[in-house]
Amino acid sequence: MTLGDTDGLLAPGWAGSPAASATGDTAYLQALLDAEAALTRAQASLGLAPSETAAAVDSAADAARFDVHDLALRAGGGGNPVIPLVADLTAAVGAVDEEYAPYVHRGATSQDIMDTATMLVAARTLDLVLADLARTERALARHAREHRDTAMPGRTLTQHAVPTTFGLKAAGWRSLVLDARDRLQVVRDLLPAQLGGAAGTLAAFTAYGAADTGALVEAYAREVGLAATVLPWHTLRTPVADLAGALAFTAGALGKTAADVLTLSRTEIRELSEGSGGGSSAMPHKANPVRATLIAAAARRAPQLAATLYGSLAAEDERPAGAWHAEWEPLRELLRLVGGAARDAAELTEGLQVHADVMRAHLDLTHGLIVSERLSAELAPVLGRARAKELLTRAAERATAENRPLAELLAEEPELKKLDLAVLTDPTQYTGSAGALTDRALERR
Amino acid sequence: MTLGDTDGLLAPGWAGSPAASATGDTAYLQALLDAEAALTRAQASLGLAPSETAAAVDSAADAARFDVHDLALRAGGGGNPVIPLVADLTAAVGAVDEEYAPYVHRGATSQDIMDTATMLVAARTLDLVLADLARTERALARHAREHRDTAMPGRTLTQHAVPTTFGLKAAGWRSLVLDARDRLQVVRDLLPAQLGGAAGTLAAFTAYGAADTGALVEAYAREVGLAATVLPWHTLRTPVADLAGALAFTAGALGKTAADVLTLSRTEIRELSEGSGGGSSAMPHKANPVRATLIAAAARRAPQLAATLYGSLAAEDERPAGAWHAEWEPLRELLRLVGGAARDAAELTEGLQVHADVMRAHLDLTHGLIVSERLSAELAPVLGRARAKELLTRAAERATAENRPLAELLAEEPELKKLDLAVLTDPTQYTGSAGALTDRALERR
Amino acid sequence: MTLGDTDGLLAPGWAGSPAASATGDTAYLQALLDAEAALTRAQASLGLAPSETAAAVDSAADAARFDVHDLALRAGGGGNPVIPLVADLTAAVGAVDEEYAPYVHRGATSQDIMDTATMLVAARTLDLVLADLARTERALARHAREHRDTAMPGRTLTQHAVPTTFGLKAAGWRSLVLDARDRLQVVRDLLPAQLGGAAGTLAAFTAYGAADTGALVEAYAREVGLAATVLPWHTLRTPVADLAGALAFTAGALGKTAADVLTLSRTEIRELSEGSGGGSSAMPHKANPVRATLIAAAARRAPQLAATLYGSLAAEDERPAGAWHAEWEPLRELLRLVGGAARDAAELTEGLQVHADVMRAHLDLTHGLIVSERLSAELAPVLGRARAKELLTRAAERATAENRPLAELLAEEPELKKLDLAVLTDPTQYTGSAGALTDRALERR
Amino acid sequence: MTLGDTDGLLAPGWAGSPAASATGDTAYLQALLDAEAALTRAQASLGLAPSETAAAVDSAADAARFDVHDLALRAGGGGNPVIPLVADLTAAVGAVDEEYAPYVHRGATSQDIMDTATMLVAARTLDLVLADLARTERALARHAREHRDTAMPGRTLTQHAVPTTFGLKAAGWRSLVLDARDRLQVVRDLLPAQLGGAAGTLAAFTAYGAADTGALVEAYAREVGLAATVLPWHTLRTPVADLAGALAFTAGALGKTAADVLTLSRTEIRELSEGSGGGSSAMPHKANPVRATLIAAAARRAPQLAATLYGSLAAEDERPAGAWHAEWEPLRELLRLVGGAARDAAELTEGLQVHADVMRAHLDLTHGLIVSERLSAELAPVLGRARAKELLTRAAERATAENRPLAELLAEEPELKKLDLAVLTDPTQYTGSAGALTDRALERR
Repeated sequence: MTLGDTDGLLAPGWAGSPAASATGDTAYLQALLDAEAALTRAQASLGLAPSETAAAVDSAADAARFDVHDLALRAGGGGNPVIPLVADLTAAVGAVDEEYAPYVHRGATSQDIMDTATMLVAARTLDLVLADLARTERALARHAREHRDTAMPGRTLTQHAVPTTFGLKAAGWRSLVLDARDRLQVVRDLLPAQLGGAAGTLAAFTAYGAADTGALVEAYAREVGLAATVLPWHTLRTPVADLAGALAFTAGALGKTAADVLTLSRTEIRELSEGSGGGSSAMPHKANPVRATLIAAAARRAPQLAATLYGSLAAEDERPAGAWHAEWEPLRELLRLVGGAARDAAELTEGLQVHADVMRAHLDLTHGLIVSERLSAELAPVLGRARAKELLTRAAERATAENRPLAELLAEEPELKKLDLAVLTDPTQYTGSAGALTDRALERR
Repeated sequence: MTLGDTDGLLAPGWAGSPAASATGDTAYLQALLDAEAALTRAQASLGLAPSETAAAVDSAADAARFDVHDLALRAGGGGNPVIPLVADLTAAVGAVDEEYAPYVHRGATSQDIMDTATMLVAARTLDLVLADLARTERALARHAREHRDTAMPGRTLTQHAVPTTFGLKAAGWRSLVLDARDRLQVVRDLLPAQLGGAAGTLAAFTAYGAADTGALVEAYAREVGLAATVLPWHTLRTPVADLAGALAFTAGALGKTAADVLTLSRTEIRELSEGSGGGSSAMPHKANPVRATLIAAAARRAPQLAATLYGSLAAEDERPAGAWHAEWEPLRELLRLVGGAARDAAELTEGLQVHADVMRAHLDLTHGLIVSERLSAELAPVLGRARAKELLTRAAERATAENRPLAELLAEEPELKKLDLAVLTDPTQYTGSAGALTDRALERR
Repeated sequence: MTLGDTDGLLAPGWAGSPAASATGDTAYLQALLDAEAALTRAQASLGLAPSETAAAVDSAADAARFDVHDLALRAGGGGNPVIPLVADLTAAVGAVDEEYAPYVHRGATSQDIMDTATMLVAARTLDLVLADLARTERALARHAREHRDTAMPGRTLTQHAVPTTFGLKAAGWRSLVLDARDRLQVVRDLLPAQLGGAAGTLAAFTAYGAADTGALVEAYAREVGLAATVLPWHTLRTPVADLAGALAFTAGALGKTAADVLTLSRTEIRELSEGSGGGSSAMPHKANPVRATLIAAAARRAPQLAATLYGSLAAEDERPAGAWHAEWEPLRELLRLVGGAARDAAELTEGLQVHADVMRAHLDLTHGLIVSERLSAELAPVLGRARAKELLTRAAERATAENRPLAELLAEEPELKKLDLAVLTDPTQYTGSAGALTDRALERR
Repeated sequence: MTLGDTDGLLAPGWAGSPAASATGDTAYLQALLDAEAALTRAQASLGLAPSETAAAVDSAADAARFDVHDLALRAGGGGNPVIPLVADLTAAVGAVDEEYAPYVHRGATSQDIMDTATMLVAARTLDLVLADLARTERALARHAREHRDTAMPGRTLTQHAVPTTFGLKAAGWRSLVLDARDRLQVVRDLLPAQLGGAAGTLAAFTAYGAADTGALVEAYAREVGLAATVLPWHTLRTPVADLAGALAFTAGALGKTAADVLTLSRTEIRELSEGSGGGSSAMPHKANPVRATLIAAAARRAPQLAATLYGSLAAEDERPAGAWHAEWEPLRELLRLVGGAARDAAELTEGLQVHADVMRAHLDLTHGLIVSERLSAELAPVLGRARAKELLTRAAERATAENRPLAELLAEEPELKKLDLAVLTDPTQYTGSAGALTDRALERR
C-alpha cells in the first residue's frame, strides 16, 4: 500500500537540509525507540528491571529493524504510533528472552514515549539550527564591519527617507539572529523528558515496585539526555508552546533579512544580490534571489503553525482528545521550516554581494532631498524657521521639476554662502549615529 | 542522502487513507508529468508540435521512471521541482529522438506546470473526499430517521437546557456535511489549468508559432481535464483561496460531529460510543473515541493552514517571491487532513452506537427541571405570571434540595390539578419541532 | 467607569469609513433591537401577540434610548449582551403597558437575537463593501482600457522576466475584485435570521401557542429582512464560516493590488504613484503610498481572523461554551477591515497615477535581455538551436558587461541580417496576448 | 460623524476589566502624549531644549485636552495617529509660547512615539495581568493544598483511565499560571522605549545638536520608564513578538483551567461548579460556567492574534508598508483578551466549588476497572502473567455485563485470598505519587 510519501518534493526550503534528516519518520522512529530504551535503562539503574533487559531493549531499539510504513498504518487504530511500536518492540525483545518482554514500556503510557521522542527530535534539530544561526551571525558581523560606513538610502513606507548605512542594516539583521539564538537556546536547554504514566500520577511505576518515583523521573531524564520536570506535562504543554514561540520568532527574524534582500535585489534596485541566484536558460538576465524567496516562504508559514500549537495549550483532562494529536505534525513542520531557513540564511548571508556603488548612486535619486531633514534642522538657526522652510520648500520643488541637485540650487542662495553646503548636502555625511550603533551592536556576542 | 521521509508516522489521521496516496510526492510527480504531457498534446493538436513528440512525452511521463528524491534535492537550486523535472523529462524524450526534446515544456514556465499539477492533485483528492462525505451523509440520514423521536438533553454552555432529539442532532450534522459537499463540489468543478508563460502574457507560445493562444489554453485545459480561465492566474490566486475555504469548512463541519461525539461518549455521559473504540490492554474499560479524536485534531489544524493560503493572495508582481512557494505544502496538508477526516467521519458515523436509553435517563438528571421553560409558559395563563413564577422557583429549589422529581412536587399543588402534569413534565413530550425539523432537513439531497 | 473605548485611534485603515459606523457598538445595539422588534412583529402577524405589543416594542427599540456602556458591563454576568438588553427592553415596553412586557423576546434565546443581529450588521456592512468594490472595479476597468498597450516589465521573483502591459495587470486586479464581489454577493444574499429557542427545537414557541413554527421562522426572517433556514444554526455555523471565507478572500484580493502598488511606487521604480500620498514636512520628497499600506495591513490580518471563525465550526452541544463567544469580535473586525480596505481601494484606484514613460524606460534596464526568451524561440529556426543558444549567451554576457543594448550587439552578426531585429528586440512588441487577454477580461461584468 | 464606537458590547470577556481601561483609545492617547513629554524632558535634561519647554509639553500632554475621535479620523491621511497628534500638541504648546513649539517631537519620527506608547500601554496592562495571575495562583495553591488527597478519575481521550487527585490537577493549573507569570515578567521588564528618528540612525537628533545620541536614548528611556536598547527597533520587532508569545501562552495556560472546569461542571459530571454561574430565568436549573466560557473564548482567539504579530517580524526596509500597521490592533486585542481572561480566572478560581463527594462517586462508575492497571501489575507476580491477564479480562467483562464491582468478583477467586483486595481495588489508594507531586509543585513560588 502506498502511503503519503513525502520526501520534500514540494519543499525546496528544507529538502536536503540537515533538519530534514533529523525530523523524518525514520529519525522520529529512532527517537521513539531511544525513549523506550532509556526508560528500561533508567528502571534497571534503580533495580526495577534486570540489567540484561535494558541491554536487550537497547540492542533491539534500532529503527532499521522496524517497518515505519506499517507502524504508520497501524497507528490509526489507537491514534498514535507508540501502541503498535510497543507491540513490535516487545516482540523483538521477547524473541531474545521471553522473560525480558514484560519490562518493555513497563509502567509508561504512549504519551510518555511520544512526548519524549518529540523533545529528542526537537533537541537534535535545534542543535543544527543553532549551528546555522552561528554561521549566519558571523557572516552578518563581517558585512556589518566591512560596510560600517557604506551609506545607502534609508527607506520607509517604500520611499527614500534619510540615509542609513548597510553596516547598520546588517547589524540589525544580526541582532535579530542573536535574539533568535538566545530564545532557541533557552528553550533547547529546558527541553524535558516526559514520564507520568496513564494519567500523570506515576502510579503504575509504584505498582511495579518503584519506591521513589522522583528518582525514576530523574534517572529517565538523565538516560535520555533531557531535562527533568517537577510535574508530568501531559496537559501542561509549556515545552511545546515555548518551542512554537521560539521557532516562529526565528522564522520571522530570518524573514526580515529575506524581505530586505528581496527588495534590494530587485532589477531596478540591485544594491544586493545573492551569491548564486537561480537562473533561467530562456532568460539569461535573471538571477532570482532563491534563498531569500524560500526563507520568506518559511516566514509566511511559521506563525500559523505556531498558532496551532499555542491553541493546544487549552488541553482538557489528563490527555486531551485532539489537542495533543494536533501538535505532532505542525511542530515537526516548524522544526523543518526553521531548519531549512537557517541553512538558507547561512548560505545567503555568506554569499551575499553588496553593491556599495549602487547604494551610493541611489542616494542621489531624490536630487539631494534625502538630506532635507538635515537642512530643515540646520538652516533654521541661520535663516529663522519660517524663511528656512520657505526656501527649502521652493528648492525641493525646483530640484524635482528641473531635475537638478538640491546642493546646486541652494548654492545660488546668497544667505547660505557661509554654510558648508558641500557637507550639509552630502548624503554620506548624514548617517547620524549609524556607525556608532553598528559598533555597539557588534559588541554583543 | 536521507531526506525528510514522511509517510504518516505522525499522522494517524490520514496515513493509509486514499487521500494520502493521492497527495504523496509520487502522486504529485505524476501530476507534474501529466501536466507536461497534456501541454505537448495540446500543442500537437493545434499543429504546433509533431504528434510523435506528444506520444513520446506521453510515454516518458511516468513517475516510476524518475527519481523523486533526487528531484526534491535539485529543486532547491531554482526554488521549484519543475526546473529539474523538465531537464530530466527533456533528456528522456530526447533519448527517443533528439528532435523531440525541444518540444518538452515549450513556451511554458515552471508555474504553469506546478499550478496545473496542484489542481490535478486537488481534483483527484476532492473526488475521494466527496465519496467519503457521501458515505457519511448516508449514515447520518439513517441515524436521523431512526432517532427522529429519540429524546435527549439539549445542552448549552455545558448544561442541560431543554430536551432535543438525537434525530435533530444527526440531521444537523448531516446538514453541515451537505454544506461541505456543496462547497467542495463548486470548487472542484472550477479547478483550472494554468497556462501563461513566463509572465502570464502567453508570449512565448506566440513566438513558437501559436496564432491563437486562446485555443491553446482551451486545448490544454481539455487535455489535462481541468477548467480553462480567461486570464492566467499566476498571481490571481482565486482557485487556491477557494480550496482553502472549502477545505477549512469541511474540516470544521466534520469537527462539529467529532466534538459532539467526544462529549457524548465521555464515561459519565456515554449516550454515544464509537463502533470500535481504541482499546488499552492495561485498562480494559477504556474504549477511546479515536476516530472522533483524529477528526477533532484535523479541525484544529485546518483553519491555520487555510489562513496561510489566504495570506498568499497578496502576491506581488507576475510571480511572487515567497507567497507562491508558501502555498504548496499547506495546500497538500489541508487536502490530506480533510481526506483523512472524511474517511474517519464515514467510519465513525457508520459504526456509531446510539444509546437511547441513556439519553432518556439523562433527561431526568435535573429532576424534571429540564422542562421548566415549558412550565413557565404554560402555568402563567393558569396561575398568573407572578404566582406561576413563584411556585416554579420554589418547586425547582425543592426538587434539587430534596432530590425529588418536579412532577411529584407540582402534583402537590391543588391549583394545578386541572393540568395534565404527566404530559407537561414529560421531557420526551417537550421536543418542540424537532421531529418536523428533522423531516424537513432530510428532504435535502 | 471607563471601558475600553475604541473609536479607531489605532485603525487608520477603517476609522471614518462607512463600515466603521455600520459595525460600532451603537450599530450593533440597534441591530439587536431590530431583531427583537422583528420577532414580536412576526408573532403579532401570526396572532401570537397583540399588535399593540409589536408597535410598543418597535417604538422602544431605539438604540439611543439604551446605555450601551452599561449593557456592555452587565453582559459579563451571563456572557452575552442580550440578557441585560432584554431586561431593559422589557422594562421599557412594560412602562408603556405592563401587559406588553411578557411578549418581549417571548420564546427566544439570547443566541437567536445575537446571531440575527450579527447577520444584520453583516448585511449592512457588505452592502457598503459591495458599493466600494463597484467603484474599484470601474476605476480598474478604466485603467485596463487606457493602458491596454502600455508595455512594462513583467517581474517574477523580483526580477524582470519578459514584458507585460499595465492593462493586463489592471485587468488582473479587476478580475480579483470581481471574484470578491461574486463571493460576497452569494454570501450576502443567503445571510439568515436565527430562530431556534433554547436548544434549537423551537419548543417554547409551541408552548406559547405557535401551531406552525415553520411559519413563524418565515415571518421572522421576512420581518428582519434576512433569509430563512431549514434548521436553526446555533451550532451549524455555515453562515459565519462563509462570511469568514468571503471576507478573507476580499482582503487578499485587494491586498494583491496593494502589494503591486507598493512595489511599483518605490522610489527606484515609480511606475505608479498614489494620487495623494501621505507627506512629511521634514522630508518633502516623500509621498508615501498610504492607501496601499493600509490595505496591505488589512490583508495581513484578515486570514488569521478568518481562521478563528473557521475554528468555531467545531462547536459542541446545542450552544458551545466558548466557540460561539469567540466569533463576535473577530467577525466584526473582519467586516471593518474589509470595509476600510474597500474604501481605500476605491480611493487608491480612482486616484492612481500611471507613469507609462517610466514603465517604457524600465524595459531597457536589462539591455534588451527582457526579450531574450523571444530571441531563443525565433533564432533557433534560423541558426539551429545550438548556434542560436551560443550566440545569445555570448551576446547577453556582452550586453551586461559592456552596458550596450542587445539589439546593437546582434546587429553585428551577419547571420542575422535577414531578421527584422528592430522588431524582435523591441520589448513593446513582445507582449504576447496581453492585449487580447485584457479585452476578454473586460468583457466580464 | 460616528466612528466605530467599541466599548465592549461584544466583549463580555474584557469589558469592565482593568485591562479594558488600560488599553482604550483614551489610555493609548495618554501614552502617546507621555512619550512626547518624556522626549522633550529627556532633551531638556541634556541641554538640548529649554527646561520651560519640557514643562510646557508636560502640562499640555493631557489626553483630556485632545479630541480622540478627530485624531482617529485624521490619522488616515498619513497612516498613523502621531502625525495629527503632533500637530495638535505643537499648537497647544505654541499657544503657551511660540518659541516652545519647535521643541515638540523634535528629531523624532512617528514610529518612535507610536512604539513607545505601545510599550507603555503594554507595561501598564501587564502589571494588571500579573496582579490577577497572582490572585489566581494563590487560589489554586489553596485548592491544591486542600484537595491534596481528594481522589477523582483521571481522564484520557474523554475516558476514565486511572485515579488522580484534584490536588494534582489544581497544582498543574497553578504550574501553568506560574509559567505564564514568569514569561510575562521577563517580557515586561524588557519592554523598551523606541528612539531612532526617521530611519533609525538618530541623525536628526545630531542635527539638532545632540553630541551623544546614546545618552539621549538612555535619558528618554529613563524619563518614559522603559528599557533602553542598543539599536532602534523600528524593524527589529523582538519586543512585539515577545509580547505575542507571552500573551498567547498566558491565554492558553488559563484556557487549560477553563477547559477542565467546563468539562467537570457538565450536568452529568458536576465535580466542579463556578461560584456564581450565569443563570437563566426560564431555566432555573442552569448555572452556566460563564467565567470558564469567556476564558475559553479568549484562548481560542489569542493564538491567531499572536500569529499576525509574528508575521510582522518580516518587515522590510527601515519602516515597512503594512507589517507595522498590522501590529497595533492585534496587540491591543491580545492585551485586552488576556487582561480579561486573567480577571475572570481570578474570580473563577477564587469562587470555584469542588465537589469531592461526586469525584469519589465517579471513581466507581467503571465498576472498579479504573484500578485494572494496578491489578495487572500486582497480580502477575502472584498468578503468573498469563493467568493474571486471563483472570482480569474475564472479571472485567463480568463487571461490566453484570454491573457488579470488580472487587466483589475478584473476591470469589480462591487464588487471590492472600491479597489485600480491599486495598488493591480501592481507587482512592491508587493515586500513585499525586500527593508527593502536589507537594513538590507547591514549593515553587
